[in-house]
Amino acid sequence: MNKKVKEIAEIIEGKVIGDSEIVITGISGIKEAKPGDLTFIANKKYKNLLYTTKASAVIVGPDITNSVNTTLIQVENPSLAFAKIMSLVGPEPISFASGIHPTAIIGKNVKLGKDVSIQPYAIIEDYVKIGDKSIIGAGVYIGHYTEIGSDCLIYPQVVIRERIKIGDRVIIHPGTVIGGDGFGFATVKGVHHKIPQIGTVEIGNDVEIGSNVTIDRARFDKTYIGNGVKIDNLVQIAHNVYIGDNSIIVAQVGISGSTIIGKNVIIAGQAGIIGHITVGDNAMIGGKAGVTKNVPPNAHVTGFPAREKWEDMRYQAYIRKIPELIDKIKDLEEKIKDLEKKLKKNRDEH
Amino acid sequence: MNKKVKEIAEIIEGKVIGDSEIVITGISGIKEAKPGDLTFIANKKYKNLLYTTKASAVIVGPDITNSVNTTLIQVENPSLAFAKIMSLVGPEPISFASGIHPTAIIGKNVKLGKDVSIQPYAIIEDYVKIGDKSIIGAGVYIGHYTEIGSDCLIYPQVVIRERIKIGDRVIIHPGTVIGGDGFGFATVKGVHHKIPQIGTVEIGNDVEIGSNVTIDRARFDKTYIGNGVKIDNLVQIAHNVYIGDNSIIVAQVGISGSTIIGKNVIIAGQAGIIGHITVGDNAMIGGKAGVTKNVPPNAHVTGFPAREKWEDMRYQAYIRKIPELIDKIKDLEEKIKDLEKKLKKNRDEH
Amino acid sequence: MNKKVKEIAEIIEGKVIGDSEIVITGISGIKEAKPGDLTFIANKKYKNLLYTTKASAVIVGPDITNSVNTTLIQVENPSLAFAKIMSLVGPEPISFASGIHPTAIIGKNVKLGKDVSIQPYAIIEDYVKIGDKSIIGAGVYIGHYTEIGSDCLIYPQVVIRERIKIGDRVIIHPGTVIGGDGFGFATVKGVHHKIPQIGTVEIGNDVEIGSNVTIDRARFDKTYIGNGVKIDNLVQIAHNVYIGDNSIIVAQVGISGSTIIGKNVIIAGQAGIIGHITVGDNAMIGGKAGVTKNVPPNAHVTGFPAREKWEDMRYQAYIRKIPELIDKIKDLEEKIKDLEKKLKKNRDEH
Repeated sequence: MNKKVKEIAEIIEGKVIGDSEIVITGISGIKEAKPGDLTFIANKKYKNLLYTTKASAVIVGPDITNSVNTTLIQVENPSLAFAKIMSLVGPEPISFASGIHPTAIIGKNVKLGKDVSIQPYAIIEDYVKIGDKSIIGAGVYIGHYTEIGSDCLIYPQVVIRERIKIGDRVIIHPGTVIGGDGFGFATVKGVHHKIPQIGTVEIGNDVEIGSNVTIDRARFDKTYIGNGVKIDNLVQIAHNVYIGDNSIIVAQVGISGSTIIGKNVIIAGQAGIIGHITVGDNAMIGGKAGVTKNVPPNAHVTGFPAREKWEDMRYQAYIRKIPELIDKIKDLEEKIKDLEKKLKKNRDEH
Repeated sequence: MNKKVKEIAEIIEGKVIGDSEIVITGISGIKEAKPGDLTFIANKKYKNLLYTTKASAVIVGPDITNSVNTTLIQVENPSLAFAKIMSLVGPEPISFASGIHPTAIIGKNVKLGKDVSIQPYAIIEDYVKIGDKSIIGAGVYIGHYTEIGSDCLIYPQVVIRERIKIGDRVIIHPGTVIGGDGFGFATVKGVHHKIPQIGTVEIGNDVEIGSNVTIDRARFDKTYIGNGVKIDNLVQIAHNVYIGDNSIIVAQVGISGSTIIGKNVIIAGQAGIIGHITVGDNAMIGGKAGVTKNVPPNAHVTGFPAREKWEDMRYQAYIRKIPELIDKIKDLEEKIKDLEKKLKKNRDEH
Repeated sequence: MNKKVKEIAEIIEGKVIGDSEIVITGISGIKEAKPGDLTFIANKKYKNLLYTTKASAVIVGPDITNSVNTTLIQVENPSLAFAKIMSLVGPEPISFASGIHPTAIIGKNVKLGKDVSIQPYAIIEDYVKIGDKSIIGAGVYIGHYTEIGSDCLIYPQVVIRERIKIGDRVIIHPGTVIGGDGFGFATVKGVHHKIPQIGTVEIGNDVEIGSNVTIDRARFDKTYIGNGVKIDNLVQIAHNVYIGDNSIIVAQVGISGSTIIGKNVIIAGQAGIIGHITVGDNAMIGGKAGVTKNVPPNAHVTGFPAREKWEDMRYQAYIRKIPELIDKIKDLEEKIKDLEKKLKKNRDEH
């Protein structure tokens, strides 16, 4: 890159505070930045890094106004603005030519949209439909009757089993499995008999799913992932789970069967949620939380068993108070002994 | 589906309580059911859903006898009975024709049973044996000398490394890895030297293993999965672990090296078990539990560090009592101050 | 195997304590050993198994000197010595002939070193470089411009995306994904916009990575795995994480974005570490720990929220003391009531 701050500000519709003629030659994180770099602060809490960064310019939000010792470019959403610049300077993205690689295996009655790309060794079973411009990566397996929308990007080695429905602009990272059987058995005299999992998985538009994720098909009806949901790596979503639009599920989270997650919910890493409960819209679930009962809308729960965050923190504080309580009780015991002695003395004196 | 309740009752050998002439047109979960649907209750604790369900008939166990406002079909095991009806009404299962796809690669001295199906791009290395009617999915890799029984269903992209033994009627879901090296190093002056993992994995009959599971091969001897064991998605089973018959391991559980799990054990989601311990037969391990020592047979342990459930719950209750203790101590302090004052006054008066 | 103890002692440069003429016919774990077996003790804490083992000889460290009832072979590092013997007696390792399988797909401008082995259905995209004697397993996908060193062993179904750098003697187990997009979004009015992840992953020499692991590419710059790092199965390493040389990451650990892990750190199973923090050199993080702030060098932290181990254990002990505190407070309340009564009586008497 070789662009003046004012040129960059123009691209991201930002307001320059400081020297707009400085030339930017690279981009970087705020801690690692060298002179010539452009960086950004997404979160006010990292604000004092402005005093130490070596970056020549920093993209900031509307809440940061004084320039310290570096030029600022003020925008509405610094992450988004920085992302725009990143796409300009990053290496050219890998592109996959449309067309069907001769080694791909395409079943009967498959309907492919315009400009679909089917990479080597992909297997598309009978009656599959794939929308325009979708890319099916190398070695991907797509089961019978599955429907995939347009502009999807399915990375190598993904397995999507039969009768799944996937919307438009969905990204699925390598190794992920969609539509494996739900985990359900009827136990008779200690022997577990498989319960058929005849439902499906339905995934909305603009969903992104990380690597090595597992999303099971429903026992009946469907497991549902709403529009705009983002799922990180190694997440487990059991049968008949419902996830509302624009929720975010961070890595290694597990959601048990038939649980309903509302819209705009954030579930942080390694949290676990039991089955058959409801997590309300806009709720936040802390990292490693173990959720054992319904979570109301807008609540922020943490810990195990998960409680409202303020309550969980108070509990943590209570535990920290125990040594003090032990001391106080010892003190009280002494005082009472002393009182008893004095009282006895009083009585004896009479 | 279009069947009278009495016809369904006949199939599942159930007793009708209510109108046996009602026509059933679909199946569903008890909460989502519409008129015309058949549903079931597996667990007495959901009993009061009988008052609100819109289902036309509900399969119930012997412990539910009065029909409320819907027809009941009473059977020994409602889940199993419902599963039977599901297989009748569900979409036709995908079938894979027997035979070897021309793109499958079959090594030297491979022995295939009757009616084996080897799907596209599967790789079967030298000296592998596969029993009758087993299905090897697309892109599956089976390493040298591995033996797989009959009637197995190995889904796409599974990797089974060399010298593994797998029983009959085993189902392995996509992306699972059987027989990766155990995690073992000898550290000399801070450098970790790989310890060869020359053992194997042995899997019994009627085992089901979820998606993206990892079961490591033993350092020597074998990692063992007993008959009838059911393993959910993203589970980690380390080298030399032994799992007794009919145990159930729920999603994202991790079992460390050389640990022995008894028969009929249930390990709930995200629990972790350290290495070199024993979990007795019929034990239950709660979700997210962290098991750090032996668990006796029939015990139910929860929490981290895991304790008997009643003990863990009592601990939780203790913590909830702390604010009350703080109040009581404050109260006692006041009273003692008061007593001291009074006593002093008494003495002064004399 | 059929070797006298003295012959084995020679191979591993050990000192025999006991009968050096005994013939060893097999190897085994110390608990499972039968007469004729050689076994070992890596850890002094298993020392008293020497009294019960049926092994004919046991490899021990310098800290065990008296032979009890079995012959000892004393060496510097018993695990390493035993590993040497294991490689002698174990089944012959599977070897993969060098050369490119005719079904492998090799892109343009790919540079392969001497004696590289490319197994069936592997896909090597344009501009990839692979060093001498590396083995690329069946169905592996290697993205554009990626560089892999020499003597690497990449197991089947691994996906390594574009522009990744991997050192020499690296082992990657099946199903692992290197270089998936980091999980980053800019949220504007509840809608999550993807932030390009234009960085890469760089992996040092002598690294081993387990099965179904996910290591994300950086937002910019790189995610870094130092020399000699060992990573177990199902581990999640987020974008821009840095892991210092010779650290050990046990199964199902999750490390969040931009966190820095020092050298020789040990992170036990299922631990989770939040983003943007630093874990110092030689630190130990307990199993299932939830690390929420920086960990100083050489610290040993456990629990959730993670604290120094001694502190965490003291907290556990505090909680165990609560019932005692409840009893003491009840007792004090009684005594105070009694005192109040007596005092009142005293006063009344006057």
